[in-house]
Amino acid sequence: MSLIDLSKQVALGVDIGGTNTKYGIVNHRGEILAKGHLKTEDYPKVEDFIDALYNEVSPLIDKHCSQKQFDGIGVGAPNANFYSGTIEQAPNLHWKGIVPFAELMTKKFGVPCKMTNDANAAALGEMMFGAARGMKDFIMMTLGTGVGSGIVANGQLIYGHDGFAGELGHTIVKPGGRKHWSTGSEGSLEAYASATGITITAKKMRAEFPDSKLNEYPEAEINSQVVFECAKKGDATAIEVFRYTGQKLGEALANFVMFSSPEAILLFGGVIHAGDFILKPTKLHMERNLLPIFRNKVRLVFSELDEADAAILGASALVWDK
Amino acid sequence: MSLIDLSKQVALGVDIGGTNTKYGIVNHRGEILAKGHLKTEDYPKVEDFIDALYNEVSPLIDKHCSQKQFDGIGVGAPNANFYSGTIEQAPNLHWKGIVPFAELMTKKFGVPCKMTNDANAAALGEMMFGAARGMKDFIMMTLGTGVGSGIVANGQLIYGHDGFAGELGHTIVKPGGRKHWSTGSEGSLEAYASATGITITAKKMRAEFPDSKLNEYPEAEINSQVVFECAKKGDATAIEVFRYTGQKLGEALANFVMFSSPEAILLFGGVIHAGDFILKPTKLHMERNLLPIFRNKVRLVFSELDEADAAILGASALVWDK
Repeated sequence: MSLIDLSKQVALGVDIGGTNTKYGIVNHRGEILAKGHLKTEDYPKVEDFIDALYNEVSPLIDKHCSQKQFDGIGVGAPNANFYSGTIEQAPNLHWKGIVPFAELMTKKFGVPCKMTNDANAAALGEMMFGAARGMKDFIMMTLGTGVGSGIVANGQLIYGHDGFAGELGHTIVKPGGRKHWSTGSEGSLEAYASATGITITAKKMRAEFPDSKLNEYPEAEINSQVVFECAKKGDATAIEVFRYTGQKLGEALANFVMFSSPEAILLFGGVIHAGDFILKPTKLHMERNLLPIFRNKVRLVFSELDEADAAILGASALVWDK
Repeated sequence: MSLIDLSKQVALGVDIGGTNTKYGIVNHRGEILAKGHLKTEDYPKVEDFIDALYNEVSPLIDKHCSQKQFDGIGVGAPNANFYSGTIEQAPNLHWKGIVPFAELMTKKFGVPCKMTNDANAAALGEMMFGAARGMKDFIMMTLGTGVGSGIVANGQLIYGHDGFAGELGHTIVKPGGRKHWSTGSEGSLEAYASATGITITAKKMRAEFPDSKLNEYPEAEINSQVVFECAKKGDATAIEVFRYTGQKLGEALANFVMFSSPEAILLFGGVIHAGDFILKPTKLHMERNLLPIFRNKVRLVFSELDEADAAILGASALVWDK
């Protein structure tokens, strides 16, 4: 019997989005040996998608490792259920209903396949390869078009009884507040702290302050990047947009801290490009809403993973997560 | 080597409150073989308290088991830290600073001692002996003078990085809302959903509705029990007090569900005596604030443990929790 050289083992990480799918072959050190992508929306039938993925990935696997060294596949996908390995009612995918994705992948590739949503995968990626190495209790917040989250407690990702835990973007931070464009809920964190939410806030605030540089842009061009540009130039309204966003985010984070008492909260995604404009008010309002025993203990940390690769790394980490 | 007969093993469960301490010798089936109490406030020095406890308990242990069958001590106490076995800055206890309680107990009794706060202990008690038997993901809410909580995910109590996780009573449900009488925070769950919060709501509402039966009582007598009596008689204001309380509680529970996706939320404590007056609005507002994937999945359940014994059973369960 020969020992397995762990450093030679690889996993396939797959990140499925509504438009694009990215994949990479990843080793135990978090190095991506090969990567590629295909258009999710080109494949209305899930079986065709898996066939196409197999045809692309299979030669890469053969090139970089033996079948024995190929430990498995990890997939991050919207509405993916960790327990059942299914994608359930994902609004942004062509594949409707409950899709037994992991089972289909295993049948095709001949290795185990595990799935979860993209934010959970990102949390695992940070724990295995990034800023959360060695942490047993942390929360990952992904602040992009939407707000996602992955929660690790006792060194384990929290999936909940049904596999859907960690939807912190949909918790209510302001009862009766801003109506969410898609869920219809009122005052959810995502309605304020996502790039989409920031855009809404910016459009409202620039209407109130005619002097703001934000008014130099046509309505359709207003987004979180433009707000950041204006804030850097010292525009008070743009700065206020981030301050308000940080307040709502900080209030939400305080509640999350009193739930699972993490040692750190990791922030990831396009919104964090705003740096201190968002980080400082977030920290201020988080601390202000914490009980004294939780104050000045929780680090707010930006992700260490490369944004382009984080989803692939996170998905691959699923394969090795115990 | 002889096998240990688990059914003969016992633990000492101790529930420390500001005024009274209750203790019981508990077996693996959750039967209390002997119990008693002493006045916490009679012992300004923690060493004297432990000596007194030892003198009372020691003969009971000798009577009900051998030293070999005595597995250990579990303690529920305010501000108890699971990791360090200390009681830290507990406002309602004479023992100030950081008290190495578990260490002192072990030295005196010669068996391991584990500690946590009372709500966490209650959650373990429900998992081992009560309504949460067999559950891996649930939340325990204790609704008494204050609001406490214990969160179980992946079959384990969540302690967080510092041992203080699960302070859901202090999460903010209404930013800028009612000021908490002790923490000073604005709009916390405890300010509304505790017996204390219900009393405040009742005093406010009866002032607005002169016809309410609540006005037949002197100010000092208004409490959640009186509100319940009036609600049973059909008093619309008293019913509204519980409806409003249930709304705030339900909104908070929805956020908790989207955090850890539990299969059930267990409710315990004096407030639940109000039965459907509080349960129905709580359920309504919880469901209303959930994303569709979480709806109609989470059971709201009343505790199955005898209120007088729950704290002792919960504390004893610490000894056997892995």
